[in-house]
Amino acid sequence: MTKQDLNDLRNVFETELDKHIRLLQTPIEMLKPMIYSLKGGGKRLRPLLLLAILNAESEKHMKKGATTAVALEFIHTYSLIHDDLPAMDNDDLRRGQPTAHIKFDEATAILAGDALLTDAFCLISDDSKLKSKQKVKIISLLSSAAGSHGMVAGQLGDMQAENKEITLEELNQIHEFKTGKLFTFATQAAAIIGEFTPEVEELLVNFGETFGVLYQIHNDLLDVIDDSSLSGKGHSSDEFNKKSTYPNLLGLEESKEVLGQEREKAEKIIEKITKLSGTDYSILNKFLSFTDID
Amino acid sequence: MTKQDLNDLRNVFETELDKHIRLLQTPIEMLKPMIYSLKGGGKRLRPLLLLAILNAESEKHMKKGATTAVALEFIHTYSLIHDDLPAMDNDDLRRGQPTAHIKFDEATAILAGDALLTDAFCLISDDSKLKSKQKVKIISLLSSAAGSHGMVAGQLGDMQAENKEITLEELNQIHEFKTGKLFTFATQAAAIIGEFTPEVEELLVNFGETFGVLYQIHNDLLDVIDDSSLSGKGHSSDEFNKKSTYPNLLGLEESKEVLGQEREKAEKIIEKITKLSGTDYSILNKFLSFTDID
Repeated sequence: MTKQDLNDLRNVFETELDKHIRLLQTPIEMLKPMIYSLKGGGKRLRPLLLLAILNAESEKHMKKGATTAVALEFIHTYSLIHDDLPAMDNDDLRRGQPTAHIKFDEATAILAGDALLTDAFCLISDDSKLKSKQKVKIISLLSSAAGSHGMVAGQLGDMQAENKEITLEELNQIHEFKTGKLFTFATQAAAIIGEFTPEVEELLVNFGETFGVLYQIHNDLLDVIDDSSLSGKGHSSDEFNKKSTYPNLLGLEESKEVLGQEREKAEKIIEKITKLSGTDYSILNKFLSFTDID
Repeated sequence: MTKQDLNDLRNVFETELDKHIRLLQTPIEMLKPMIYSLKGGGKRLRPLLLLAILNAESEKHMKKGATTAVALEFIHTYSLIHDDLPAMDNDDLRRGQPTAHIKFDEATAILAGDALLTDAFCLISDDSKLKSKQKVKIISLLSSAAGSHGMVAGQLGDMQAENKEITLEELNQIHEFKTGKLFTFATQAAAIIGEFTPEVEELLVNFGETFGVLYQIHNDLLDVIDDSSLSGKGHSSDEFNKKSTYPNLLGLEESKEVLGQEREKAEKIIEKITKLSGTDYSILNKFLSFTDID
């Protein structure tokens, strides 16, 4: 496997995911909606980030992180199923396919989300490739990143901010919780699995945080740009005001500028990690290209 | 503290629960629905079972299990919040109080459940009273008992069995998943925390399984008896057939007989544990009295 190809890593991930799905001793009716959502064609950014960092060190390192990568995708997938529910964002489609509660029903979607969330911790605790101390640390970080002072709190804040004026600081806080924390988990978990030095771990955490911000500004910008090009007349102000976004609070041009600044910051962190660790981490630049807006 | 008083243990548990709630670094809007549901006046059977087993050994043992007991109640509470949702059992009241989605809203209730489920694993992984290996084993058991081949699968099976004829075997299977597994977790986790012998652990697991069955038959019987005494004319056959229950499948008298048989079985297990361990486990008989139907 080459160290610079995300497609190779993605294949490794999909194989690992399929293996873990096969190992689940789950009744078929419960398994179906879980598989439907897990195999819905996501970009796998979070697990790939974890695997790419470990793979920069060695393939052996990367393989140690495979189960944690699957657990992380379980958590991300559960969050999408629950976010799509009628009581939440009420989305009928995701990636062009019916969302879980449309394909099955609402009760099944809620339970499939609950099952994925719970099983993620089962995967990590049963992972024979990691030491007990590593597993405890990873479970602590993951539950902290995803729980009441992490992703779930971010989703609640996001919903409560709808149709309300919020400051850029508040928006950043919501995004840090809702999106940032799982990216930071991906990078920090890699450091724990790879037994990297505290200095490298800290830089990786910084990279995760910065990537989270980048990813969110990029998403916000994409929404505006897509809508403008589709409607041919720019974003309607009503829709524009429904939810606070970067372009909404800062304007399009200044948002692009912030995106550029954060990107530079991320590139510098990659250089620092490479220098400090003596390992080539340029693969991380490939993740930055996911935040291109052209 | 006396070894035979569940009220003492309940006070210990409530104090421990309040402590952990105070320690949560959760935004207030997220915390409110979590506290509302956690402090809704449940019997705390699952955590008390865990604590009582350890307390039979010593107060020191019991204190080691305090955080795990709180985590277990987090999981139980999340399951009630989600089960009550409109898409699931659609209950407006629980223990005479508005359910979480009535008191707050549906989105908040879903997220409060998600947060409690996730935070349970955070509590255990951050518990300084246990060794890493114990924590990993407990997390593995808890996530397995609660996840896609445990409680969540049981809830899905329960919903899919509505308005359908099922066999006693199928009913037992649903109950084992939906209710039994968390009781079994309570007893097995105590064995792991107390570092009991494999033989005692096995007997405790048997007790947990048997208590789960007892508890469910008792609940089924109570539904029929309560309804009869309230309406004064017995259970309407429509309502009676909506959901498969023990009295529905076996009749009232035979259900009571099975309850008696299971109770005898449980009493014998308590005697065996006491004999094998050299510790007085008669406190467990107090749990059996929760399944009295008079």
